[in-house]
Amino acid sequence: MRIAFLGTGVMGASMAGHLIDAGHDLTIHTRTQARAEALLSRGAIWAETPAVCADAQDVVISIVGLPSDVESVYLGPEGVLAAGKPPSLLIDMTTSTPSLARRIHQEASLRGISSIDAPVSGGDVGARNGTLSIMVGGDHDAITTAMPLLEAMGGSIVHQGGPGAGQHTKMVNQILIASMMVGASEGLLYAERAGLDGAKVIESVGGGAAGSWTINTLGPRMLQRDFEPGFYVEHFLKDLSIALQEAQEMGLELPGLIQAHALYARLEADGLGRKGTQVLLTLLERLNEVQSSS
Amino acid sequence: MRIAFLGTGVMGASMAGHLIDAGHDLTIHTRTQARAEALLSRGAIWAETPAVCADAQDVVISIVGLPSDVESVYLGPEGVLAAGKPPSLLIDMTTSTPSLARRIHQEASLRGISSIDAPVSGGDVGARNGTLSIMVGGDHDAITTAMPLLEAMGGSIVHQGGPGAGQHTKMVNQILIASMMVGASEGLLYAERAGLDGAKVIESVGGGAAGSWTINTLGPRMLQRDFEPGFYVEHFLKDLSIALQEAQEMGLELPGLIQAHALYARLEADGLGRKGTQVLLTLLERLNEVQSSS
Repeated sequence: MRIAFLGTGVMGASMAGHLIDAGHDLTIHTRTQARAEALLSRGAIWAETPAVCADAQDVVISIVGLPSDVESVYLGPEGVLAAGKPPSLLIDMTTSTPSLARRIHQEASLRGISSIDAPVSGGDVGARNGTLSIMVGGDHDAITTAMPLLEAMGGSIVHQGGPGAGQHTKMVNQILIASMMVGASEGLLYAERAGLDGAKVIESVGGGAAGSWTINTLGPRMLQRDFEPGFYVEHFLKDLSIALQEAQEMGLELPGLIQAHALYARLEADGLGRKGTQVLLTLLERLNEVQSSS
Repeated sequence: MRIAFLGTGVMGASMAGHLIDAGHDLTIHTRTQARAEALLSRGAIWAETPAVCADAQDVVISIVGLPSDVESVYLGPEGVLAAGKPPSLLIDMTTSTPSLARRIHQEASLRGISSIDAPVSGGDVGARNGTLSIMVGGDHDAITTAMPLLEAMGGSIVHQGGPGAGQHTKMVNQILIASMMVGASEGLLYAERAGLDGAKVIESVGGGAAGSWTINTLGPRMLQRDFEPGFYVEHFLKDLSIALQEAQEMGLELPGLIQAHALYARLEADGLGRKGTQVLLTLLERLNEVQSSS
């Protein structure tokens, strides 16, 4: 297929690479052209704007930054829907708002274009290995058309419901992680203060009822004071802000989410937005230093 | 070996059974004699008090209810240390306080008796299958002696440190679970309000970075409104109270633990202490009903 691919950051570059491997022809656009070069050297064609990128292609796939970026690349003056001949299927894989997914779906429908939301989980490693979990919202026919492309990029692909349902599912994913990050940080801080060996503790607790990807994968990084990003604090905070907003719109007050959001907002305010989410441990340490000295 | 086994509830009965299977001679005592009958029919001998039970045995193993029960069976007037000829090794497998574990260790030491704390995780299924995770605190020699007995009851057995370290590790286990229960309840409540199919959501999120034993095992029970106990709210609340107390003594304020403790205290106050921990979902539902109608 002829695919317009928008956004070739850490995730997008790997995902676009799998599509090239699968024999598709890619035209690409991303904010910083330098980040597209590996793909250009593999035969992808550069385009100056999303509209130019999408023009006369079969499908557009995007994975950009904020919901405002999604809005801009689809609905902006140089966006996909402003192309002379837009693609017949739009696939947004950014973690964005369910309401924007529905709006793009509606705008696209008016022009006879299909649109699905398909955010992912699994991080840079999942993107590289093609094992992402892809949570899909949209109409059945559009998803059937998209499926071979999604299968080239992901391992688990589940149709969650109509437009926006993929984004809602991603919010559930982030709500689960939010509380787990708090619990893992607290558990390891407790272990440290109790004089335990954190690695042995994870050996005892990681395989049973307390086990999680979080404690088994990020726990050891916390213990080694390795706060390099698998997933950026600032991106996680963006996601939690969307989840909080969506929950409020549904009349839901979720205390664990509210608490985790406040902690991550503080991390960003402290200048740690470009660290990995596991840096939360250091905030709990600092909060407890202040306390014990007061 | 000749083993005094104290406490033959759901967990203890299975664990004592494995020791009989391994060829040991058991004398048993438990609060409600009826709960010992299956073991008595397999050759275990009944004793009227912990002291009588422990007298002239090689080892005592206990798994009772509250820390006050542990204190009573070891240090009370009819407790193990009041036996005419107490065992040379004490193994308490109750989830109890690190400070009590250290106190029993100290009292035992004065009499030349060894003592280890060895709380477990893995629930009734782990006890039945002999796959419990056993977190052990105490002296090296005592643990070496205990090891064949622990191996008859558990799968993962890790020496975490000196007296009390097993209990501290179990507290880490419960701190992790506390926040995961909040996150799982909130995630599934969000999913329900967003009109998603909870089972499909778990399919998408359970295998990746949001995956945990909690969401994969208790999540489906929440969706089916199955609140029968795997693990009682009242027992979990007891554990969280110990963790909170220990954290305070270390000068630690752990916001996720504090929040989860408050939610579980409310569940017990609402008369739901004998439901399974996954009943937390219903409290979040009720809190949000109140909110949306105000």
